[in-house]
Amino acid sequence: MGNASSHSIKGTGVVAGVAYAPAVWVRPRPDLPTVGTPVGEDQREAEFERFTEAALTVAGRLETRAAGAEGNAAEVLTATAGMVKDRGWHKAVRKNINSGNNAEYAVVGATDKFVAMFEAAGGIMAERTTDLKDVRDRVIAQLRGEPEPGLPTVTGEAVLLADDLAPADTATLDTAHIKALVTELGGPTSHTAIIARQLDIPCIVAVGAELRSIEAGTQVFLDGSLGTVTLNADESEARQAVAEYREFAAKVAQWTGPAQTKDGHRFQLLANVADGNAARVAADTEAEGIGLYRTEMSFLSATEEPTVDEQARIYGKVFAAFPESKVVVRTLDAGSDKPISYATMESEENPALGVRGLRIARDNESLLTRQLDAIAQAAAERSDDAATWVMAPMVATPSEAKWFARLCRERNLTAGAMIEVPAAALMADTIMPHLDFVSIGTNDLTQYTMAADRLSPQLAYLTDPWQPAVLRLIQHTCVVGRDHNVPVGVCGEAAADPMLAGVLVGLGVNSLSCAATAIAGVGAQLAELTREDCEKIADLAVSAESAAEAREAVRDYISALA
Amino acid sequence: MGNASSHSIKGTGVVAGVAYAPAVWVRPRPDLPTVGTPVGEDQREAEFERFTEAALTVAGRLETRAAGAEGNAAEVLTATAGMVKDRGWHKAVRKNINSGNNAEYAVVGATDKFVAMFEAAGGIMAERTTDLKDVRDRVIAQLRGEPEPGLPTVTGEAVLLADDLAPADTATLDTAHIKALVTELGGPTSHTAIIARQLDIPCIVAVGAELRSIEAGTQVFLDGSLGTVTLNADESEARQAVAEYREFAAKVAQWTGPAQTKDGHRFQLLANVADGNAARVAADTEAEGIGLYRTEMSFLSATEEPTVDEQARIYGKVFAAFPESKVVVRTLDAGSDKPISYATMESEENPALGVRGLRIARDNESLLTRQLDAIAQAAAERSDDAATWVMAPMVATPSEAKWFARLCRERNLTAGAMIEVPAAALMADTIMPHLDFVSIGTNDLTQYTMAADRLSPQLAYLTDPWQPAVLRLIQHTCVVGRDHNVPVGVCGEAAADPMLAGVLVGLGVNSLSCAATAIAGVGAQLAELTREDCEKIADLAVSAESAAEAREAVRDYISALA
Repeated sequence: MGNASSHSIKGTGVVAGVAYAPAVWVRPRPDLPTVGTPVGEDQREAEFERFTEAALTVAGRLETRAAGAEGNAAEVLTATAGMVKDRGWHKAVRKNINSGNNAEYAVVGATDKFVAMFEAAGGIMAERTTDLKDVRDRVIAQLRGEPEPGLPTVTGEAVLLADDLAPADTATLDTAHIKALVTELGGPTSHTAIIARQLDIPCIVAVGAELRSIEAGTQVFLDGSLGTVTLNADESEARQAVAEYREFAAKVAQWTGPAQTKDGHRFQLLANVADGNAARVAADTEAEGIGLYRTEMSFLSATEEPTVDEQARIYGKVFAAFPESKVVVRTLDAGSDKPISYATMESEENPALGVRGLRIARDNESLLTRQLDAIAQAAAERSDDAATWVMAPMVATPSEAKWFARLCRERNLTAGAMIEVPAAALMADTIMPHLDFVSIGTNDLTQYTMAADRLSPQLAYLTDPWQPAVLRLIQHTCVVGRDHNVPVGVCGEAAADPMLAGVLVGLGVNSLSCAATAIAGVGAQLAELTREDCEKIADLAVSAESAAEAREAVRDYISALA
Repeated sequence: MGNASSHSIKGTGVVAGVAYAPAVWVRPRPDLPTVGTPVGEDQREAEFERFTEAALTVAGRLETRAAGAEGNAAEVLTATAGMVKDRGWHKAVRKNINSGNNAEYAVVGATDKFVAMFEAAGGIMAERTTDLKDVRDRVIAQLRGEPEPGLPTVTGEAVLLADDLAPADTATLDTAHIKALVTELGGPTSHTAIIARQLDIPCIVAVGAELRSIEAGTQVFLDGSLGTVTLNADESEARQAVAEYREFAAKVAQWTGPAQTKDGHRFQLLANVADGNAARVAADTEAEGIGLYRTEMSFLSATEEPTVDEQARIYGKVFAAFPESKVVVRTLDAGSDKPISYATMESEENPALGVRGLRIARDNESLLTRQLDAIAQAAAERSDDAATWVMAPMVATPSEAKWFARLCRERNLTAGAMIEVPAAALMADTIMPHLDFVSIGTNDLTQYTMAADRLSPQLAYLTDPWQPAVLRLIQHTCVVGRDHNVPVGVCGEAAADPMLAGVLVGLGVNSLSCAATAIAGVGAQLAELTREDCEKIADLAVSAESAAEAREAVRDYISALA
């Protein structure tokens, strides 16, 4: 999208797609005063009037926006306007002013009091505190003559820029106008990223301070899969890219299985689920089965361990959604950051590097064998054709794989392991002989390979599933899998990225498992590529020096095909 | 050391060496009462007498041990006996008994009071609280008729077994009697391991609950490098192994440089230091220079950043100890778990996977460039022959390496990187073209490759530097280093293990850097091996399936040479 004067700023793309529109900024929250400015007794009435005026202006602005909005957004805006005019709150502000404080500081004090009351009330009241603080910030900005913080009023299309988005900023986000999100901070699991995925609008996070250089009103071209925001993009190229993206989106909407490349090379396209409800949703897509059933959901919320029968019933609900298909069950993946109340989980300095996954069972084998008994019991109810595969998280050594496989086979279960610890990929030739299959967990594999916390917003530039170092470990695992005739799947976030899914198939991955919402995008993208294309883009990605370079090379290759 | 009836228990060997002697147990500390048992008014005098009697018995036992000990040990024992008889403490106990509490609870209360007083006094008084608690535990055990906790009285030779060793247990540890340490818990950096290294006696930690099956008095054979405790070992074989080990220890004592294999293949043997004092100690060994100068020491303790001149003076002290030799300086390796007060270090969920090492400089480049300026300034004072190499910690990508190298070269410094993030080893072919050298940090590389916290005692079985997965990454790095003509060093704990040092040289490592105390052991071991031997043991280790198997195969190969 370059021309002589264009300039691109890079971040971490978290939702694919392109947009071309003027930038608008979510105004930052005002700094709150921590001390009051004394107000003389004769000035206090005027000070309160200054407050009332500001509050009414803010309320009026929200009411105008409410009138122009619909449904839930209109309700939220009206409710917020009501809060600005709340008598109790005004009374509390007046009291603070009467004690000699200026309006800004009085608003802070009155809000703190209400927040404490709401929090003490708990439940639905406690949830309102975010809105209360939003109201406080709007009124304080108005008192200071600063622009109103939070979401601006947008009439045409826009790309929304922000430091980071708070829940209050996104509640009324209207995708008829807001075509993409870009934040300076945040990471792939930040609130912004979650909202963007829900709304399915292109999103880039962790752009860094350079984002601030973009002034409101600047026309920007944004590419969510490349993670780039381009200034002064060539207009016709930009519009062309938007049109192409819409065309691809249409293909995604129309795509039906089976999952295969343009030249008919089949691969399995499966769904990641955590319970029976999600499995039923997945069954409505083209998913051919479940590639990752995270069983810890039913453990984490329980106060005591579910019995074998209870567990079997829970697992049976997931099996029921795919009565004839493959379901890959992952055994309990808890740790000190995801504690289960009935197994000892001492607090750890680095939970991600702690006693987690299969390691918990080292001193508590019966916790695992009870789960395997339950899986076997539920599996026995399935049709003879339905494959039930079981895999262990956090396998690091051949002896762990051997031990887990023995426990599975004693129960006639097909045994596998997650490849998410770098050692497991590096030792694949010694681990695979013990197993029937492996599944690569790209999120954790990336975290450990890059030595960067997958949840750290500051390190999002490292924890990118396109990192060539990670792709090299995947490539190695696929080569060893082929040698040992052991199928290799991928069940991390990487499998949800259509272009990266093409790379994975090119590397030799036999199955991809991703969120149900991503199935069609992956299927539609792979249908556009031949197996040879996949192998070529795999080569490009593995030999790149950085995640960005890998993504760009593959993008260019695929664009040239069209 | 096996025979038909022998049985070995495995742990993590942290200090090499063998021992053959009866086992003795350090008795565990008693559980302290958290509530008192009421004592009727007419019983209180008798209760206090019961206390006095117990205290005098404990004091007498300590005095007997003091009479049989010498020097510092005798002083510590006498001082402890004095504390048991302390009038103030007895008075406090009496007061608690007079309030209606039983003796055990009264002792806890009186001790808590004194501990609080000592802690408030601070300094040397505060250090006595450990001894106070030791006294409390001994008296409570005596009151209950339980065996005295802590170190037993040993007359002949013994192998000391314990859950874990507290500082109080080790203060009077006498190596004339105690020939080895084995603990159920602990890790390579636990107090036990540190003491064992200081005393240079064989030590195994993290054996697990199986250790408890060894009864006091059982004759055990212990191998610190294999991490095994063998019951019913063949006596003549065991005595032979002890004799051989003594012979090797004598060779170590006599070894003088230069570091080379039996057939004259040279490699550099360097020391790890953290300040000028340590550098001077290292200069008294056969170390040919400094392979790892950890600069963070002078930063962590400072409340504000040392100026460039101050830093240069600090670095100059280390350079002065090796005026003509190579010194490899590692730039600041801080993080949220090792915070420096004048750089933002937000608390992190997983500090080991956080913003640390070179990553800190990403948003704060001048912190790094000031350090490089200071290193350059100190280096300018050195002789022309003295090499000053600078390396960055936590490099994960080629672009980080390139950036760091540019900053170094702008200051005429030789630029390198630690290879401690798995991605850096995997991407070595793209990272090395930017650099003059690399140095493998095996401690962190093992931690990330195995996804196991290096400080976690429960995971010591995974964070073993003999893990074949880690050795494979080292092998790959050496192969790429040879291709790119970039020297590869190792500066982690692995380089301090004589046998593993042989493996590293066999893998193609050009320099080994370890604690000054380990230099002679490594030098002496390598002098017994030809280069071909090193290559053979490297093959054995890399193709093993586990750390234990690797260690055993290499051990067998080296034993067969003798």
